[in-house]
Amino acid sequence: MNIHNILVAGSYEKEFQELLPAKTPQSFRFKRADDITEEDLSWADAYVGFKPCRGFRLADLKWVHSFNAGVNNYLEIEGWKEQEILLTRTICSFGQRISEYCLSYVLRDLQDHYYFEGKQREKKWAPKTPQMMKDQTIVIYGTGEIGQEAAKVFSSFGSTVYGISQSGKPKEYFEKVAKTSSASTLAAQADWIISTLPLTKETSKLFNRAFFSHLNGAAFINVGRGHTVDEEALIEALNSKKVRYAVLDVLETEPLPETSELWGRDDIIITPHISAVTELKEAISCFWDTLKRIENNDALPNRVDFLKGY
Amino acid sequence: MNIHNILVAGSYEKEFQELLPAKTPQSFRFKRADDITEEDLSWADAYVGFKPCRGFRLADLKWVHSFNAGVNNYLEIEGWKEQEILLTRTICSFGQRISEYCLSYVLRDLQDHYYFEGKQREKKWAPKTPQMMKDQTIVIYGTGEIGQEAAKVFSSFGSTVYGISQSGKPKEYFEKVAKTSSASTLAAQADWIISTLPLTKETSKLFNRAFFSHLNGAAFINVGRGHTVDEEALIEALNSKKVRYAVLDVLETEPLPETSELWGRDDIIITPHISAVTELKEAISCFWDTLKRIENNDALPNRVDFLKGY
Repeated sequence: MNIHNILVAGSYEKEFQELLPAKTPQSFRFKRADDITEEDLSWADAYVGFKPCRGFRLADLKWVHSFNAGVNNYLEIEGWKEQEILLTRTICSFGQRISEYCLSYVLRDLQDHYYFEGKQREKKWAPKTPQMMKDQTIVIYGTGEIGQEAAKVFSSFGSTVYGISQSGKPKEYFEKVAKTSSASTLAAQADWIISTLPLTKETSKLFNRAFFSHLNGAAFINVGRGHTVDEEALIEALNSKKVRYAVLDVLETEPLPETSELWGRDDIIITPHISAVTELKEAISCFWDTLKRIENNDALPNRVDFLKGY
Repeated sequence: MNIHNILVAGSYEKEFQELLPAKTPQSFRFKRADDITEEDLSWADAYVGFKPCRGFRLADLKWVHSFNAGVNNYLEIEGWKEQEILLTRTICSFGQRISEYCLSYVLRDLQDHYYFEGKQREKKWAPKTPQMMKDQTIVIYGTGEIGQEAAKVFSSFGSTVYGISQSGKPKEYFEKVAKTSSASTLAAQADWIISTLPLTKETSKLFNRAFFSHLNGAAFINVGRGHTVDEEALIEALNSKKVRYAVLDVLETEPLPETSELWGRDDIIITPHISAVTELKEAISCFWDTLKRIENNDALPNRVDFLKGY
């Protein structure tokens, strides 16, 4: 495919200049998402940005590249498949970022940071033996790029790592992989549940009352999408100790409103959607790599499958 | 070497029975360290325990096995070399335990746990991009069993890992290893200094004013021995920001007295010597493995070298 005119939603001219060759065969326009006009969209055959601009339409586009890993905001627009438009997303170091995020909260718990901080405030020398990673059973929802990287990290410490995916196909670094529909046996064994799931029709409110009822005191980490969780059901599960504690980097409503009861709970850790932040530099490199692959008709590992929704 | 009579300092009879074969060619006596008599010591040709008992003497012993990794308390007794007594120590999972401890505090910092906890208390959604392990330079003092395991873990995340040892010999998982005497160039580059050093004549107060003066805002983690650090010099280095923050699992005086100013500092994390706790079960397995090796004249990876002091 040949791409001529690329519309970038955001004032990133300087950053692109630094990272791209001085001369490219393509023309670029840089505009803040809110300032993009109909004329810009008619001019462009490619659109690049964190989200669709106001008045976004697929009509004249051949290719859209998302600066995020999650593309649910783009998929809300209809017509991708019918109009055969290529949608790609940023993958880059998300796997490593998310693994380090998850690992930090698992280790925080196993190493009793909270307990020792309390003892330090009291000036009390009160030993307690940390738990080891090798004794943990970790069930990861999503066995794609990101889930697999997390599985690689956790299994390197000797943890028992199970995966849950739509297909249930075996994947490297997972001791077993089960289908979402038959996940309950594995989930029941989990010390940790980690969800890396994107938001799709299938995953919407997947973590609901029925799901939580299978757990036996697992901790629940969500680094996927907020809408995959029924937050009321999660609170009930925390109250009944089906879930021991929750680490939520993504939420149904973001930013989480100050009035939400989630903020104040001792058994919930909230972080503001930072586990897979796209650093602009990295996003631009990924865009440039994708553009070259498109021009060379190379395989696109970051191409969105509209049936799957990621 | 043949061992007949084994004196165990501690009431661990039940635990030994669970883990050892029903019949062993050796006789065992179990006594609390404080209750051990001269007669017990004359009877025994092997002594096993966390520390020497009161009135401990090497005279009739052929072998001493320490339930700890650090053996400085045993080495305070004179005559090991002259009397050719075998001293072994517990190694087991210390490397993994200490690696997980260190990693937990590195990730706590890179992932801004402290910052996000504060924001959660304020109910504020305030994103901040975590740092990545691959961008960290980590200098590990001690390239033995434990240091090497830590190097393996950190390098698996793409961190740049340098080692410091007496010999300066290259070792797997370390990008470079320098001698203690020429460590300052590497130490100056460190984001993290991790000491796994045992206490010996050479390491006593090794981390002193001169050492800290080379640092450029590194964090300092001590999982070795407290007496390797001049605590006053560390406090000065924290005040002058030569050291950004310190994580101390071992201290000059343990338990750390309630009156110590270390407890109250925001830039010091104190844990009560728990990074390499010996679980009794594991210590007994290691003892049993060592005994079998001794009987078979096999190599002893956990034999203490009296010249080195570990």
